[in-house]
Amino acid sequence: MKGLELFDIVKNDLKLVDRELQKIVQTHDPLLTETSAHLLNAGGKRLRPAFALVAGRTYEYNHDRLIPLAMALELIHMASLVHDDVIDESYTRRGIPTVKANWGDQVSIYTGTYLLAQSLVLIARCDHPVISRVLADISVKMCEGEIQQIVTSFDPAQTVKDYFFRIKRKTALLISASCKLGAVACGAPDYHIRALARYGYFLGMAFQITDDILDFTASQRVLGKPVGSDLRQGIVTLPVIYALAGSAERSRLVEIIGNKEKKEGEVLEAINIIKKCGAIEKSFGVSNRYLEKAKKELLHLPSGGATKSLAVIADKIGKRKF
Amino acid sequence: MKGLELFDIVKNDLKLVDRELQKIVQTHDPLLTETSAHLLNAGGKRLRPAFALVAGRTYEYNHDRLIPLAMALELIHMASLVHDDVIDESYTRRGIPTVKANWGDQVSIYTGTYLLAQSLVLIARCDHPVISRVLADISVKMCEGEIQQIVTSFDPAQTVKDYFFRIKRKTALLISASCKLGAVACGAPDYHIRALARYGYFLGMAFQITDDILDFTASQRVLGKPVGSDLRQGIVTLPVIYALAGSAERSRLVEIIGNKEKKEGEVLEAINIIKKCGAIEKSFGVSNRYLEKAKKELLHLPSGGATKSLAVIADKIGKRKF
Repeated sequence: MKGLELFDIVKNDLKLVDRELQKIVQTHDPLLTETSAHLLNAGGKRLRPAFALVAGRTYEYNHDRLIPLAMALELIHMASLVHDDVIDESYTRRGIPTVKANWGDQVSIYTGTYLLAQSLVLIARCDHPVISRVLADISVKMCEGEIQQIVTSFDPAQTVKDYFFRIKRKTALLISASCKLGAVACGAPDYHIRALARYGYFLGMAFQITDDILDFTASQRVLGKPVGSDLRQGIVTLPVIYALAGSAERSRLVEIIGNKEKKEGEVLEAINIIKKCGAIEKSFGVSNRYLEKAKKELLHLPSGGATKSLAVIADKIGKRKF
Repeated sequence: MKGLELFDIVKNDLKLVDRELQKIVQTHDPLLTETSAHLLNAGGKRLRPAFALVAGRTYEYNHDRLIPLAMALELIHMASLVHDDVIDESYTRRGIPTVKANWGDQVSIYTGTYLLAQSLVLIARCDHPVISRVLADISVKMCEGEIQQIVTSFDPAQTVKDYFFRIKRKTALLISASCKLGAVACGAPDYHIRALARYGYFLGMAFQITDDILDFTASQRVLGKPVGSDLRQGIVTLPVIYALAGSAERSRLVEIIGNKEKKEGEVLEAINIIKKCGAIEKSFGVSNRYLEKAKKELLHLPSGGATKSLAVIADKIGKRKF
């Protein structure tokens, strides 16, 4: 799923966002410039800026507000990735060494905080109380999600509810905000804003569930990181929770999950247990139901290019391979 | 230097800020609540909230804006301390175990980011474009200061200019913003705002220089952390830079600073070299010149209780023991 292809109607603005992001990370500190540029150039679908731009498309397209908003959304996302990589001890992402791998934990912590700080500069530039408030609230919730992930890691007793609590905070809320605030920035009516927020939320949930499935089903080449990374790091995702509930080999799976020093063979054994008990299909089912819900929200929006794009994106996410 | 004694004219509001800070860190996440409460109760002079409240005092005292502003300033400061303790591998601060010591690096990173995120919620509540913009810019600069500290650590070649660059970002800008934004929040005239910003900047520089001196001259009991902590962590402060320039034992000092695994005896030897060459007195001289500059700025402000308080604070900082 390439961001730029899917978001054709905002292609030029997405390129502008990218150029402006390159500019904003040019500080007089050579190290921060280097780490931030590394991150920016390490791929990424620019999904959140794209959603904001598409959502704004139907209304009075406010460039001066949308561009900084789109940039801020990507920076908040990038900041969370850098901190994630420190926490999860990840050395590659999208096939490229992480900031942690190249520069270490200390520099990663400040690169993350620096990107978050740069997003504040852009949010201030939007000069819209709703945008400031929503993104502030979400930043708090994203931290709650991360802390819950740390606390529950290697714990096979967690529930589907715990998982949803976490991915809502880790992923869905920021995608929801991207859709919602793109419309807010362009003066959309309230009921459109609410529909877009729900669309983004449902789509974000589906997006993360698919991500978590692909961690088991895709190849290392496609993932850009080793298969079963979540499992290795002790992150218990939906397929694992379903396998724990439905597999005949539950007790062996519990054992492997709780083991902090898993051998390669054990990771493969766990993936096998998860795959053969139908947990993957069940997880896909949940993702698809979220996507259906997302698409239903689009009925509240004016028909047209932007809304059609949002429907196509929902379809693609159900079929994405990375 | 107890914050509450010095800031008598805003004593009740400072207590209110403290109570509200206790409330805001009560999340539904028990771990984040615990770490944040630990930080809040680990002392701290609440200097930044106090400055904002005192600065607002002369003008139309806007409670609804000042209280969230004061809280946000303290949270930004606290966030930087938690991240600092991870970077510097500090296990005690103000005589109390750090979040890092009690909960580890992972939890510390998110506690810091969480406090920063909570500050955004409060800044949004201030609903004032200048407050948002100034605090955003400062957050970026604070990161630049921290990164510079990482990059220059254990490097005896750094200059007084490097040191000023760093402490401006680490300390002086946020204290300057506290004074400035307290006045902004209460509709002060521009030339007062500018004078308060300069007062806070000069005072902040003096404050940090004094802090760095005390790291050599105070006792562990008073500091709440081991004497010479900066030196151990490779942070080269003003007294060290002056000693490197003026001491006959320069080459021995260079050797000790660059050694990442200093023995206790070497730290004491370095402190001795620094003390006996007059570097401490020279640093105090610089701090005092900054304090004089700070006090001069007060001539631009209306005479009265608040301005008098600011003068007293400047005097006290010159004499503070911790």
